[in-house]
Order: sequence, then C-alpha cells, then structure tokens
Amino acid sequence: MRMITLDEVASLLNENDHYKLLTHSYPDGDTLGGAFALAFALRKMGKKVNVAVNGPVPSKFRYLVKNYSEQDFEPEFIVSVDVAAMSLLGDSVMEGVEKIDLCIDHHRTNTIVADNIYVDGEAAAASETVYQLVEMLGVELDEDIAAGIYTGVSTDTGCFCYSNTTPRTHEIAAKVIPYCDWQQINYINFVIKTRAKIKMERMIYDTMEFYAGGRCAVVYTTIAMQKALGAGDDEMEGLANIPRQVEGVKMGITMREKDGGIFKVSVRTNDGINAAEFCKKFGGGGHPAAAGCSVEGDLASVKRLLIDAAEAFL
Amino acid sequence: MRMITLDEVASLLNENDHYKLLTHSYPDGDTLGGAFALAFALRKMGKKVNVAVNGPVPSKFRYLVKNYSEQDFEPEFIVSVDVAAMSLLGDSVMEGVEKIDLCIDHHRTNTIVADNIYVDGEAAAASETVYQLVEMLGVELDEDIAAGIYTGVSTDTGCFCYSNTTPRTHEIAAKVIPYCDWQQINYINFVIKTRAKIKMERMIYDTMEFYAGGRCAVVYTTIAMQKALGAGDDEMEGLANIPRQVEGVKMGITMREKDGGIFKVSVRTNDGINAAEFCKKFGGGGHPAAAGCSVEGDLASVKRLLIDAAEAFL
Repeated sequence: MRMITLDEVASLLNENDHYKLLTHSYPDGDTLGGAFALAFALRKMGKKVNVAVNGPVPSKFRYLVKNYSEQDFEPEFIVSVDVAAMSLLGDSVMEGVEKIDLCIDHHRTNTIVADNIYVDGEAAAASETVYQLVEMLGVELDEDIAAGIYTGVSTDTGCFCYSNTTPRTHEIAAKVIPYCDWQQINYINFVIKTRAKIKMERMIYDTMEFYAGGRCAVVYTTIAMQKALGAGDDEMEGLANIPRQVEGVKMGITMREKDGGIFKVSVRTNDGINAAEFCKKFGGGGHPAAAGCSVEGDLASVKRLLIDAAEAFL
Repeated sequence: MRMITLDEVASLLNENDHYKLLTHSYPDGDTLGGAFALAFALRKMGKKVNVAVNGPVPSKFRYLVKNYSEQDFEPEFIVSVDVAAMSLLGDSVMEGVEKIDLCIDHHRTNTIVADNIYVDGEAAAASETVYQLVEMLGVELDEDIAAGIYTGVSTDTGCFCYSNTTPRTHEIAAKVIPYCDWQQINYINFVIKTRAKIKMERMIYDTMEFYAGGRCAVVYTTIAMQKALGAGDDEMEGLANIPRQVEGVKMGITMREKDGGIFKVSVRTNDGINAAEFCKKFGGGGHPAAAGCSVEGDLASVKRLLIDAAEAFL
C-alpha cells in the first residue's frame, strides 16, 4: 500500500489493459460520473473496461450509460473511484475481486485498502481527478466523458454552490460543458422533484418550529407520514437542508423516525456553529456544518431533549 | 449612437475621469454587482466614480457597498450597466443626466439611447463584460471588485445552472472566487429564505393542481393570501419556478392576483414547449421557456380559461 502521485496514476492507467472500475453503494453522481467517464476514456485508448455498480444504475443517471455496454473479458487491474471505505463496496461489486490495485478518491478520511492510493483532498469530486487524468492521457473529450465529469463535479458541489468548490472546479466545468447536455443534466439533478417529494416538503414545512430566539429550527418526519405519502428514501434526501435555510437560523435539526423507536437526527449549521460537537453529545458525529446522531424515544421526548440541548449549546 | 467594440469601451474608460454609473430599477445582482465592481476598478485607476441606484441598495446586497461611499464631484461621463431599456432607469437615477455616453449590457433586446453602445448577447451577465474590462484596464482584482463580479454572474445564471451559462462564465468564476467570500454570497442569494417566503411556498404547494395528464401544473396566490402572510414582493420572487419543477410537468402556470381583478400569469416550460407562444394568446409574451401575461376575471374563471388553453396547447 503506497500513496502515489497523479503522474504515477496516469502511468498505471497507460500500462494496464483490462480494467474493472468499482463504485460505491447507494451510487451518487460522482462515483458513477467519474467511473463511467474514466471507463469511456480508457476504452477510447483501446483498453477493455467494465464498471461495477451495486444494483442497477439509478434511473436519473441512465444518461451516463446510454453508450455503455458490458464487455466480455477477464479484468486484471481493479480501480475504485470515489469510494472512501471498504464497507461502501457492495458484495456484487466485489465479486471476483481479490485486491484493489488502485484507489482514486477525494475523501480525506479515505481508508480503502489498495496497492496504490491517490486521494486529492482538495478536489471537490473524484471526477475532478478523472478530468485531469483524461487530459494527461491525451484522450479527447466527447459527450460520454464530459457528461460523467460534469455530473460528478456539479452534483458533489450542489451546482458550484458548496464550500468545496475551487477555481479548478470551475475551470473543469468550462472545459467539459461544450461537449455535453449540461442543461439537461442540471434539470435532472437540481430542478426536478417527484410529486411525493413535494408532498414530503409540504409536510416537513408543517412541522417546523423555532427555538432559541429563532436561531434553532426543528422539523420531523414519522414512519406514518412517510407511509402516507408512499415516499421512498429518494424523497427523504435533501430534507435535512430545509430548516437551516430559514433566515436567522444557525442550527437546523431534522428528526426522522426509523423502525424500532429510534430517531435519526440530522443537524445542519451556519456561521461556524459546530454540528459535529453538538451531535457528539448524543454519540454521533460528522463535519462542522453537517453532522448526525441517533436518539431513542418517542417524538415528543426526543424533540424536547434536542431542543433543550440546542438552547444550551447556542 | 454607434455600436462599439470591447477595445473601444476600454479606451473610453481609460480616457475619461468623472463617472456616474446607472443601474436599473428593482436592482438585481447583476446591475449592482457589475456597476459597483466597475466603480471600484475605476476608482483604483484614480478616477472619480459614483453609482446611481433607484432607492436604497437592497439589504441582501449590502455587502457590495461595505467599502463604498459617495464622492463629491461633477460627473462628465455617464455609463449604464445591465440596463435594457430607458424605462428601467428610475427618475432619481436620471437626475441631472442629459445623455448617456456609454451603455454596457448583455440583453439582446437592448433599446437604450446612448452615444456608444456595447451589448454582448453571449454574456450571461453584464458583469462578465465588467470582468473583461477590469482585465483589459490592468486593474488588479480585490475583494470589492470580485464580490461584484461573482454576484452578477452567479445570480444571473442561478448559480451556473441556467442555459445562459457558458465556458467563459465558469472561467470568470474561477478567476474571482479566490478574492471574495463567495460562500457567503451563495448563502445569501441561493440558500436563505425568510419565514414569510417559506410560508408562501407552503401555501403555493397547497394550491397545486395537475392537468393534461400531469403535463401541466397550476398554482395561484391571492391578495388575501399575500396579506395573511405579510409577504412583500421579495417573497413572491421565484414562486413561478415551483410548478415546472415537478416531475413530468412540461408547463408550469403561476397565477398571482393583483389589485383590480387582474391575475398576473407566469408560465415556465420544459422540453421545448413555447411559453411565449402560449402567452401570446392572452396578449402577453416573453422567452421560449419563461413568459407571462395578464388576465382579467375571478380566480375560478381565469384558472378555467388557462387550463383549457393549456390542454389544447400541449
């Protein structure tokens, strides 16, 4: 296991010929976009490449694979893309894999076990690294490669809005947008909402309460609410961001009832309030502005517990 | 009145010394960001510059003027920034102005009367042109200039999401973000919502109905609803985008009751459905994906009229 440079990554990709690229479970825009972009680029170099995805490619990302089909060959070089930990590699993805030869990632917390490791913690997305590699390998951009890279960088940055965006992120977007239908990609990833999601947002708004002089907003969903709407886990994504969007709110708390009398709690903060420190009080953790924990109890008592802690904390 | 090149614009800005910069009524991020960025740049060149704004700078944009104060001098060269038509220049802005010497804009429909006109219809924002000028004039970027330019390009593109975004837009963002607190600017312009706005969105969701097999979504607000929430015109901004975000919707119609028994109707479309053509039927107009019209009548009859027209149109 050794940390290698980007030049060495490019050399490895030049030298080998039969690839299997691994993506992480609950695949998102970066693991899929980065892996398929790299696959299309390597195939353009005449290499054999397959991408392993845990389950089917989610329907919203089908545009990434419209020109992709499995190739029949024996993989000899295994590369993980955007995978931060071994536990995020599903069983089907790991089928026939004895060891990982190369890990390409951007999570500073990366713990993947691989012969060669390249983690660029400054990259907003693993797809930023894929763009750099495509350039270094001398592969010309095309729609498939560009769509993958744009999907990775735009989804991991909330369309260039989050703090992980850097000048390089914008420079890469400038290079790839002439080659792909980025407007349609933005529409799919940032505009469109299912009816169930809209109904869930409405319900969430109905539960919103303010504490600590308006600096803390609390919302919740129950199993019954989720069932009543027929909302899947997709519809629950992004709800945690709702309370902290309200003017004046420094800490937004989203409580989501799970089976077994447990609430999954997501905390999002503004203005330097430390969400991870807050969640530590309940055995959780995370990042300074986005953290989580689990709390046992009924709705009223869990809410009371969190509000009291928030009022003391703020 | 003559159309001039960007080089000629730069020459004019080099030659003159006493500026008044004009912004448009209901000032947005581009007219303010572009004008103040240009003002700070010209001042750095040792010139006298004031910016005329119709009314106070909206509170959300106060960060643009934290290092700005009026200078005392007689203006000799008048420049409009991001102003598409004379009617958009408020009386207070035009005080003491006899003629406009230079118009800098990006609206293809520009009808400003000025000695020299520069309209770059490819620019996503007038602030893109301001960036180019700052570079050509050899002024070094600083926080004030960068914050203005970033505000202009990010707000006019919905944070690099709308179709007017080009590679140049991203390239400019890459250049300016190292100099300004773009995360805070994004938070102010794209994340934060007032409580009244959230309540208004909830109410809007409650009115949502689907027609034409789910391809048309209709929402409305009434004067009574707006009053009940104490919502100002700021809270009404952006509501027109809500119905077309729903999966499967090709045409989103937002009806907003105004005084005098009139509904202001906003139409937003996806997938090439022509909103301007639809609104023309009611004496309105606009762009292919975003258009509007006014219809007289009570809620039920105006809604029926629009739904019937939409079902025939789709």
